[in-house]
Amino acid sequence: MRVLILGGDGYLGWPTAMHFAKAGHEVWAVDNYLRRTMALETSSEALMPNPNLNERARIFREIANLDIHVRIGDLADYDVMHAVFSEAKPDVIVHYAEQPSAPYSMIGRTQAQLTLRNNLNVTMNCIWAALEAAPESHIVKLGTMGEYGTPNIDIEEGWLEIEHKGRKDKFLFPRAAGSLYHTTKVLDTDLLWFYVRVYGLRVTDLMQGPVYGLSTAESDLDERLLPNFHYDDIFGTLVNRFLVQAVAGVPLTVYGKGGQVRGYLNLRDTLQCVELAAKSPPAKGVLRILNQFTETFSVNDLAARVKAVGDGLGLSVAIKSIANPRKEKEEHYYNPSHSGLQDLGLKPHLLTDDVIAEMLNMVMRYRDRIDPGKIYPRVKWNN
Amino acid sequence: MRVLILGGDGYLGWPTAMHFAKAGHEVWAVDNYLRRTMALETSSEALMPNPNLNERARIFREIANLDIHVRIGDLADYDVMHAVFSEAKPDVIVHYAEQPSAPYSMIGRTQAQLTLRNNLNVTMNCIWAALEAAPESHIVKLGTMGEYGTPNIDIEEGWLEIEHKGRKDKFLFPRAAGSLYHTTKVLDTDLLWFYVRVYGLRVTDLMQGPVYGLSTAESDLDERLLPNFHYDDIFGTLVNRFLVQAVAGVPLTVYGKGGQVRGYLNLRDTLQCVELAAKSPPAKGVLRILNQFTETFSVNDLAARVKAVGDGLGLSVAIKSIANPRKEKEEHYYNPSHSGLQDLGLKPHLLTDDVIAEMLNMVMRYRDRIDPGKIYPRVKWNN
Repeated sequence: MRVLILGGDGYLGWPTAMHFAKAGHEVWAVDNYLRRTMALETSSEALMPNPNLNERARIFREIANLDIHVRIGDLADYDVMHAVFSEAKPDVIVHYAEQPSAPYSMIGRTQAQLTLRNNLNVTMNCIWAALEAAPESHIVKLGTMGEYGTPNIDIEEGWLEIEHKGRKDKFLFPRAAGSLYHTTKVLDTDLLWFYVRVYGLRVTDLMQGPVYGLSTAESDLDERLLPNFHYDDIFGTLVNRFLVQAVAGVPLTVYGKGGQVRGYLNLRDTLQCVELAAKSPPAKGVLRILNQFTETFSVNDLAARVKAVGDGLGLSVAIKSIANPRKEKEEHYYNPSHSGLQDLGLKPHLLTDDVIAEMLNMVMRYRDRIDPGKIYPRVKWNN
Repeated sequence: MRVLILGGDGYLGWPTAMHFAKAGHEVWAVDNYLRRTMALETSSEALMPNPNLNERARIFREIANLDIHVRIGDLADYDVMHAVFSEAKPDVIVHYAEQPSAPYSMIGRTQAQLTLRNNLNVTMNCIWAALEAAPESHIVKLGTMGEYGTPNIDIEEGWLEIEHKGRKDKFLFPRAAGSLYHTTKVLDTDLLWFYVRVYGLRVTDLMQGPVYGLSTAESDLDERLLPNFHYDDIFGTLVNRFLVQAVAGVPLTVYGKGGQVRGYLNLRDTLQCVELAAKSPPAKGVLRILNQFTETFSVNDLAARVKAVGDGLGLSVAIKSIANPRKEKEEHYYNPSHSGLQDLGLKPHLLTDDVIAEMLNMVMRYRDRIDPGKIYPRVKWNN
C-alpha cells in the first residue's frame, strides 16, 4: 500500500510511519512541527531528544534500510495537502494532523481558535484532497473516546439504534466532549460523516483512548528513533505523567476524586489498530467507527498500580489528590464496547506490572532530564 | 435591550433590525455584504433593488425616526467582532452572520471551504466576544431544522432522552444534515453546546424551517426598506421560488417526487420568534433549542397551493417534476414538534390562500425584473 501519514512527526505519527515502512509499505510522512512549536511555547518539551523528521527518516534509512518520504508543510493550507496527495497517490491516509492537547485548547481564546481552525481545516483539506486526487483512497482518521464523554448509558462503537415513540432509526452515537480539543474531534466526525454519505468517501474513524508507552519495535532499533514522549500536564497523557512522577520522586497527581474511568491502550497497540484498519478498508460511502482501547481503568486504579510497581523498584511512590483543573465527572458510569478491532485481529498488550516496570526503567534512564515543574496542572478549565 | 444583529443586511437580518428598533430597543446591525457578493458571483441578484445597509438605515431613520447603528466589517475577523461587542455592549446578540445557501455550499471545494470557514469562525468569534466583552449576554443563534435531516423517528425540540440497555440519559437530538451548509449549523450547535456547558454561556439555538415572504410591518412603510428577496435556485427558498415561477409563467419546478416535507414559516413570524426568544433568555449554562416553524407541507402540497391561488389570479400555473439535483429522501416520515415558541407566545401567520395571493400580487409588481433562467437548478449535489 501507499500510505500517507498526516502529522508524521507526532507521538503516534512517527512510530506509525516506521511501522508501515517495516511492514513493506511505501510511506509518506508530512508535518509542520506544530506540536513542537506549541511545546516550546508552553515549556513542555519531550523527555528524550527527538531529531527532526528529516533526520529521523535519515537515521531510520541508515539503520533499517527503509525509506520514509518526508514532506514539511502546513496541511491546513490546501495547496500543501493537494501537493502531497498528488505525489503520494495514497491508498490509505492516516490523519493524525491535529492540535492534540485538551489543556492547550483550554488555555484561552487564541489557543482555542488555533485548535478549531487547524483541526477543522486539516480535516476539510484531507476530505477534498481525497475527493480530488485520490477518490478510491481510505481515510483512517484519529478520533477520540473523549468524543462520547461519560454518558450514563453503555457506549457503543460509533452508532446507536434508537427507538422513540414506537419508531426506530440508527444515528451517530451521541457525543458531548470535555474540552475544546475533544469537541473539534466531534466536529471532524460530523464533517466526515457528511462527506461519506453524500460524496461516497471511505473513512474509518478511530475513537482512541489515552495512549501510554515510550517505545515500539522500530524505536528499539536506535534511541534516536524514539517517539516524542511528553510527560507534562499539557501534552503528556495520564499514564506517562504518572511514570515520570514516580521516577522523579514527586507524588502522582490525581485530579479530584480520581474516579474518572477511561479506556487505555499501549502505543504498540495503536500501531496494530491503525494497520488492521488500513488493511481492511470499508466500502465507499461507509463511515466505520471503531473504539480503540484495550482495557479501562480509573485514575485511582492507575495511580495504585504505578505506585505498587514503582515501590517494588525502590522508588517509594506517593499519591496526592489535587483540585481538579478540569470540568469533568469524577465518579460516573462507564461501559464502552470495543470489539471491532479485536474482530479485525487486534492482540492487546495489556498494562501488566511487567509493562509498567519496563516503562519505569526506561524513564529512569532519562531521570536527569525530568523537570517535575512541568507536570503540575498549569491550565484550568474556564478560569 | 441593546440588540446586536450579526448579518444585519440579510433576508432576515434587516427586517429583524427594523423590528427591534420599532419595538423600542437600541439596535446595532453588522454585515460585510458576503451574501451580496456571492449573489453577484453566481448571478443570483434579488428581485427588488435593496439599498446598502447604511442607506437602508438612513431611509428608516427618515421614515420612522428610529436609529439603527450600522457597522460594516467581516465578523470572521475577531478584531471586528470584539470591537462591535465593546461598542454595542449587547444584552442580546442575534447571530445570522453565516453563508446561508445550501446549494452554494455544494458548488465545489472553494465554496465548501468558504462556508465552513466563515460559519465556524463567526460562531467561534461570537462565543469568545460574548465571554470576553458581554458575559451576561444572550446569544440567539439561527440554526436550521435541516440539522435534524429526515429521521424515521419524531423530531423533538433539540434534545432526546434515550433509554439503552436499561439505562437513561439525555442528549442533543441526533442530526444528519443534507448539505454542507446545513452541516456547518450542526457544527455550530456542537460548538455552542460545549461553550454553554463548560463556560456557562447563555444560548438559544433556533432550528428554523424555510422562510417565505416579501415584506414585514416595517418594510410596508417604504419599498426601499424591503428585505432582499431571492428567487433563484441558490439563495431563494422554495415558496419564494414558486411564487416567482408562477408569475413568470414558467412551471413550478418540483425536485423529484416532491414528497419532501419541511416545516415552513412566514418572515413575519421569524421576527416574532426571535423577539420572543430574546425577551425570555435562558439561564447561564443553558442551551435552549426551539424548533422554529408554524406548519409542515410537502413540496407537492406547496406547488398545488401556489397553482390554485395563481390560477385564480389568472396566472395559469404549470407544475413540472425535474430530476432532483440534491441527494435527499423524496418520500419520508416527518413529524417534528414545535411547541416551544408557541408556549412563549408565538401567534402564527399561516400560509392561507390570501397570504399566497398577496405575495403573488406583490411579485407581479416586479414581474419585469424576473429572470426565469435564475430559478432552474444550477448546482447538483456531488456531480
